[in-house]
Amino acid sequence: MSASKDTAGNRFLSRQRDEPDPVQLLHGLKEGNRQALARALTLVESDLPEHRLLGRNLIEACLHEEAIRGRNSEAPSTLRIGITGVPGVGKSSLIEALGMHLIEEGKRVAVQAVDPSSEISQGSILGDKTRMEKLAAQDGAFIRPTPARGTLGGVADRTREYILLFEAAGYQRILVETVGVGQSETAVHGMVDCLLLVLLPGAGDELQGIKRGIVEMADLLVVNKSDGDNLKRAEETCRDYQRALHLFPPTPHGWSPKVLRCSSITGNGIPELAQALEDFAATGRQNGAFAERRRQQNTAWLHEALREGLSAEFYRHPAIREALAEEENQVLLNVVHPLAAAERLLARFEQLKSS
Amino acid sequence: MSASKDTAGNRFLSRQRDEPDPVQLLHGLKEGNRQALARALTLVESDLPEHRLLGRNLIEACLHEEAIRGRNSEAPSTLRIGITGVPGVGKSSLIEALGMHLIEEGKRVAVQAVDPSSEISQGSILGDKTRMEKLAAQDGAFIRPTPARGTLGGVADRTREYILLFEAAGYQRILVETVGVGQSETAVHGMVDCLLLVLLPGAGDELQGIKRGIVEMADLLVVNKSDGDNLKRAEETCRDYQRALHLFPPTPHGWSPKVLRCSSITGNGIPELAQALEDFAATGRQNGAFAERRRQQNTAWLHEALREGLSAEFYRHPAIREALAEEENQVLLNVVHPLAAAERLLARFEQLKSS
Repeated sequence: MSASKDTAGNRFLSRQRDEPDPVQLLHGLKEGNRQALARALTLVESDLPEHRLLGRNLIEACLHEEAIRGRNSEAPSTLRIGITGVPGVGKSSLIEALGMHLIEEGKRVAVQAVDPSSEISQGSILGDKTRMEKLAAQDGAFIRPTPARGTLGGVADRTREYILLFEAAGYQRILVETVGVGQSETAVHGMVDCLLLVLLPGAGDELQGIKRGIVEMADLLVVNKSDGDNLKRAEETCRDYQRALHLFPPTPHGWSPKVLRCSSITGNGIPELAQALEDFAATGRQNGAFAERRRQQNTAWLHEALREGLSAEFYRHPAIREALAEEENQVLLNVVHPLAAAERLLARFEQLKSS
Repeated sequence: MSASKDTAGNRFLSRQRDEPDPVQLLHGLKEGNRQALARALTLVESDLPEHRLLGRNLIEACLHEEAIRGRNSEAPSTLRIGITGVPGVGKSSLIEALGMHLIEEGKRVAVQAVDPSSEISQGSILGDKTRMEKLAAQDGAFIRPTPARGTLGGVADRTREYILLFEAAGYQRILVETVGVGQSETAVHGMVDCLLLVLLPGAGDELQGIKRGIVEMADLLVVNKSDGDNLKRAEETCRDYQRALHLFPPTPHGWSPKVLRCSSITGNGIPELAQALEDFAATGRQNGAFAERRRQQNTAWLHEALREGLSAEFYRHPAIREALAEEENQVLLNVVHPLAAAERLLARFEQLKSS
């Protein structure tokens, strides 16, 4: 299976064959060609040096397009939505329900979905598609399953580039699913226009595994599984959060986070959720918060890339890795000063480079 | 005035005179000598290369002491408390009231206070002492006013080293005041055992300026100015937060953040606040969370220092600074890919270094 995947997905990326042409790919993207999009995604995902530059050029071309769109309309017309919440809150079924609703409204929807089956397979484009089956079958939808590991946080992260490719291919609503644990929540907040936190009916017990600070960062909260026996509890949870949010710092530019409830099964509350997302976007377009947030995110992206570039050689060096592990151990035992350890390691690195 | 300061504070740091002796300073610290502590603080604050190494040695000696103490008692016996909240909530009067109470309990208290008058003066040790006058007059208290700029976040930050020096000098309760805006709140969370958020009676309106995510990170919340006409409102605010906190992720190791109220003027609630801090410490000592948090903070400190060391030369280079400003501008205009900009800058830097 992995062999057939390679032949299908990486056809235009094989060293033995023609190199992918960014101009043609962009052309394909702008025509809404799904195959071109799949190839573009695979291109920016590739670690081969020759693909790296081509990928850069392609993304830069997408940014130009966005800049032109921006100049004409002054505010971004797409909406990038991060969907977070601990495993089990029903993120993927919510994405399917919301995605279907957006499709019915005539929007084109792209999803970066977490592929739970591909923790080890890198960059599969034919991964587990049993989830979001209905949405996947829609002409106006594009689902990109990505391995849970290696996305949203970490060097290999391509989420921001995926988003730009989705938008260049004409997708207007981009849904980014997170794994729901660890650093991914904070990372996705720096990549999307709107962070949607999915909750369960109850007293917040399910937040056990989530990173502290995330509830406060959410722009919208939705109590999912608001159906059947859960209905009353969902209403209460919704009210509790509505009351609680007043006690927390407001978002910049005066958006007040909303709390909604919905059911991915009955579909109740899905139109209201879609409307709240549009309201959020409209507010941000009007007061400039939307464009400002994207600008800040791009600058942060630049500096993150610089920091990574400046330290990559250091952290990759075998002798340094060994010395670092030793120093870390000493720091943990409280016998060396972290700053002294850092200085020793940096001096060692200089020595290694000059020898 | 700055000349007399130099003669007084930097007496043992002048190039013309004897170099400070870390062994003697540590000896002085362990005897609880205030002058030794003041000199030690000034030493680690100094940017002179010859002081840098001496400062490192001194801090390392303090860490050794801590390691020995740790080996004997297995859990830290000191408590590092970060006090945060927007300007105007009464952080410094609360620190004075809490500090006086701790002194009465027989504890020795050190404070890193924000010196509002010294935004420009670097490392003054004779700064504004009109605040916390009563506490400053106590034998068991030591107050170090530090300029608001340059502390808690940023290269020049010495807070972590101050804390170690305070502890080496026998201070058991360390209170770290934050400016109450921007990055300082997040930074202090990575340096203390316990984050105390000071609030005002009301509906959270004062949180306007605070960084989102901080309320969720607090280990204790206290509604200050709970006196006179505010009393009823303070009770309500307290209850509202108590209810709200159940809806947010718990702290690791199962500490449930508490909400208290107090008045720095009447002193009501101050003993309860002191008790809650001790309860927090006791819980953390028992389940190991306390020692674990300090270990993690030390490792984070090491990696932060490495990142800074690895990028310092880059960010200091005049040609790079110019090129960076230009690339940043292009990124903001959306005409270049942040990753492409980063690559160009890194290549330029390599070129500059090798020429």
